[in-house]
Amino acid sequence: MSVLASRPHSVPALTVALLAVVLVPGPVAPAFAAAQPTPSVGTPPFTAAQLEEARLLRERCLVDDTGYETLRSLTRNVGPRFAGSPGDAIAVDWALKRMRELGLKNVHSEPVTVPHWIRGNCSVEVTSPAAQTLAAVALGGSVATPESGLEAEVVPVTNLDELARIDSTRLEGRIVFYTGRMQRAEDGSGYSRAVTVRGRGAAEAAKRGAIAVVIRSVGTDRNRLAHTGGMRPEAGDKSIPALAISNPDADLLEDLLASGQPVRLRMRNSSQWADSTRSANVIGEVPGRERPREVVVLGAHLDSWDLGQGAHDDGAGVAIMTAAAKMIGEARLKPRRTVRVVLFANEEFGLSGARTYARDHAAEAGVHVLGMESDLGAYAPLGLHSRVPADRLPAIRAMQAMLAPLGVQYRGNDASGDADVGQLAALGIPVCDLDTDASEYFDWHHTANDTFDKVDPALVRRNVACYAVLAWLAADHEPGFGRAPKGR
Amino acid sequence: MSVLASRPHSVPALTVALLAVVLVPGPVAPAFAAAQPTPSVGTPPFTAAQLEEARLLRERCLVDDTGYETLRSLTRNVGPRFAGSPGDAIAVDWALKRMRELGLKNVHSEPVTVPHWIRGNCSVEVTSPAAQTLAAVALGGSVATPESGLEAEVVPVTNLDELARIDSTRLEGRIVFYTGRMQRAEDGSGYSRAVTVRGRGAAEAAKRGAIAVVIRSVGTDRNRLAHTGGMRPEAGDKSIPALAISNPDADLLEDLLASGQPVRLRMRNSSQWADSTRSANVIGEVPGRERPREVVVLGAHLDSWDLGQGAHDDGAGVAIMTAAAKMIGEARLKPRRTVRVVLFANEEFGLSGARTYARDHAAEAGVHVLGMESDLGAYAPLGLHSRVPADRLPAIRAMQAMLAPLGVQYRGNDASGDADVGQLAALGIPVCDLDTDASEYFDWHHTANDTFDKVDPALVRRNVACYAVLAWLAADHEPGFGRAPKGR
Repeated sequence: MSVLASRPHSVPALTVALLAVVLVPGPVAPAFAAAQPTPSVGTPPFTAAQLEEARLLRERCLVDDTGYETLRSLTRNVGPRFAGSPGDAIAVDWALKRMRELGLKNVHSEPVTVPHWIRGNCSVEVTSPAAQTLAAVALGGSVATPESGLEAEVVPVTNLDELARIDSTRLEGRIVFYTGRMQRAEDGSGYSRAVTVRGRGAAEAAKRGAIAVVIRSVGTDRNRLAHTGGMRPEAGDKSIPALAISNPDADLLEDLLASGQPVRLRMRNSSQWADSTRSANVIGEVPGRERPREVVVLGAHLDSWDLGQGAHDDGAGVAIMTAAAKMIGEARLKPRRTVRVVLFANEEFGLSGARTYARDHAAEAGVHVLGMESDLGAYAPLGLHSRVPADRLPAIRAMQAMLAPLGVQYRGNDASGDADVGQLAALGIPVCDLDTDASEYFDWHHTANDTFDKVDPALVRRNVACYAVLAWLAADHEPGFGRAPKGR
Repeated sequence: MSVLASRPHSVPALTVALLAVVLVPGPVAPAFAAAQPTPSVGTPPFTAAQLEEARLLRERCLVDDTGYETLRSLTRNVGPRFAGSPGDAIAVDWALKRMRELGLKNVHSEPVTVPHWIRGNCSVEVTSPAAQTLAAVALGGSVATPESGLEAEVVPVTNLDELARIDSTRLEGRIVFYTGRMQRAEDGSGYSRAVTVRGRGAAEAAKRGAIAVVIRSVGTDRNRLAHTGGMRPEAGDKSIPALAISNPDADLLEDLLASGQPVRLRMRNSSQWADSTRSANVIGEVPGRERPREVVVLGAHLDSWDLGQGAHDDGAGVAIMTAAAKMIGEARLKPRRTVRVVLFANEEFGLSGARTYARDHAAEAGVHVLGMESDLGAYAPLGLHSRVPADRLPAIRAMQAMLAPLGVQYRGNDASGDADVGQLAALGIPVCDLDTDASEYFDWHHTANDTFDKVDPALVRRNVACYAVLAWLAADHEPGFGRAPKGR
């Protein structure tokens, strides 16, 4: 049980005052029963006044472009902000300033140590049976090739399973080419299947004697802009150069291989590792009117990959969560508890910010009422998952019902908190996940094409409305959400 | 009047034999009247047997992937083939070999002198009010910046008209940024409006004291891949560096300028000019069964820009025209006259091949019955334009009628021959233009994204069918098409 949920609270005077001036349907009195630490079956989890406040907030968010203009400012005035890069520090300053401009309180940064990898330049050329230059980028963390490059015959494999079945003598001294293609899907499920070769492809190929790998970009587009992304190194891994090539270039390479002739690649990469450096989580709040120490966390990550402007990933999340807090801060009635926006440092290259926040705030896990994260771009909201005790599900369903006009269905009590807020879920903090349509997101993800023009202002507004409503209701929900159940 | 059209010809015995075995609707005898030098009103321009042969050819083309596989081979085995580059010479060898493989006759190359410009590298960075790196490419023919680059404040102008209205003191020592955006249209009409700044933007800005220009890419996409293309230098022009930036980067630059603060750019470009060099037009034929000296020309250009694979521009044209000839060569009945495929050298950077062909073959203009060119990618055929004497329009309408099931309407007697075959039109040679849907073409045109994966095999087949039918009927049309009327 959470510290919060076990504490009895009185019905706040301000709510009574509010109810007197708001037109609400049905009897008002029974709703007060919800303001008990343990809700009982059949008792509405929110008062009509609370729901009306949330409805008004939703409608205001749907006509407000604070989120879109915040994203414009971030992409124009900061741009790429990879962990440890000059843009990263500029982004932290930008976020502090922007939060203050939007009226958030307790705006501050909390230091985070981040790894520092420097991309350098890379090139990939087919040297035989034809001369072709491929559009390529280094995967995050790749080591360099020798300065003069390396050249070897290519061995195509679909995925890690196929790699494991191939005789090592065919791999020794060769460049492994992972050919598997990511499938487009509304739920983004193609990503988790395809991304395994980005995470472990180089390390597993190195174990079998390969001297480098190229992977078909983990992305659904057909642009000649390759997709970068982090690898998942493990202790004892041997490091070999690891590059991604664009989908059209992977098609070309597959066609050349299909001719039956040996295909040779020449690769160069000049990435390097530098000493770990400093970044920061940036935090701003709408203080709760009654229990300001208790917080609902709206999370997004401030860092981006270095190739684009990080517009959808995760400028959109930064903009959506910051705007949601701003709209809550301007609500007629601020919620009982604090709404805290946490813009995490370095999600992309090791979750440094989320891990640091979870470590530094572990002792306050009990005052974290609920966490949510926006990190799948600004696309149509479709579904809500929760991870709360069963007796809190009526509250979650009431929150979802407020988003039903925006197309959000309830999808189950199996939320993860996603990458950053997932670190809070691991502390037992309840979380919600808002599913959005991921069909297009992986066209831009981790490429130079992740720019402001790809973002639809109407979808930013819709996301802001969802998170503002969820956060307002969660922060105003008398009994809170207890502790999250283990497992999924 | 053309030499051809004034010569009487006998009805060929083979046609008579053919008519005996082909089922044709209606009476056969009157159709023979069309085989006269001057068609008279009301006389069908083609015999039923001719039309049936064309129909069979059309149907065979619609199920044959020679064109698509030819394009695969060109993009895979040659790739980029900019005039004077190593790929250009490889492309000439490839074309000779491919034409022979496809059974064309008299396959040969004819030397063409081409200019030789070497792209080098370029970069564009915003240095103030924010640090941003822009996706840029040099325009074809651009001079280099100083090795250390150049840096100056940006002056935005929409187009050449606006440039002319600006006080020169605002332009001196500045970088002019042409902001005008190309509009998407089925007829590609946005291109001719937008491309003027690519052609003359640098020269006109230089006259007014600017030290460099950047242009918003002449293209309809939103990818961070800038569009290159040639400029239109004139005698006395002063050369300044001229780069194109991608549409998303132009959006960024416009947003920064809208903030009202001075915006500064740093540019570097290392392009250089080398001595003119050799390339070649590549020619192959299906010899006519009766009058092999008389030719119908199917033109496309073999060269491409250097950034992509020249898949739509103009690998598609190369593939379509070569496949159309191959299909004609395999027809039950070869046409009376020769069908000649001419793959022109260096269309992109000065029409060298077309000008050389027109010069070298000027004395044979009279035996050129009709010319057509495919240089707008492989997209849905929509309309046919001709440029023939009025008394030949019934033949043109009969040719179009054979393409009506493929969606081709007749659009007027105002054809130009387009860029390359337009050089033949200038000699009085009749021409036809096949309009195709240009809505998407300028997403890829002159970018790294012009790759094989963007081409739809069904649309290649449909184009092959159109040109094969047009060429077969034109080459078999007894009276020919006279000389093209002047003007449009």
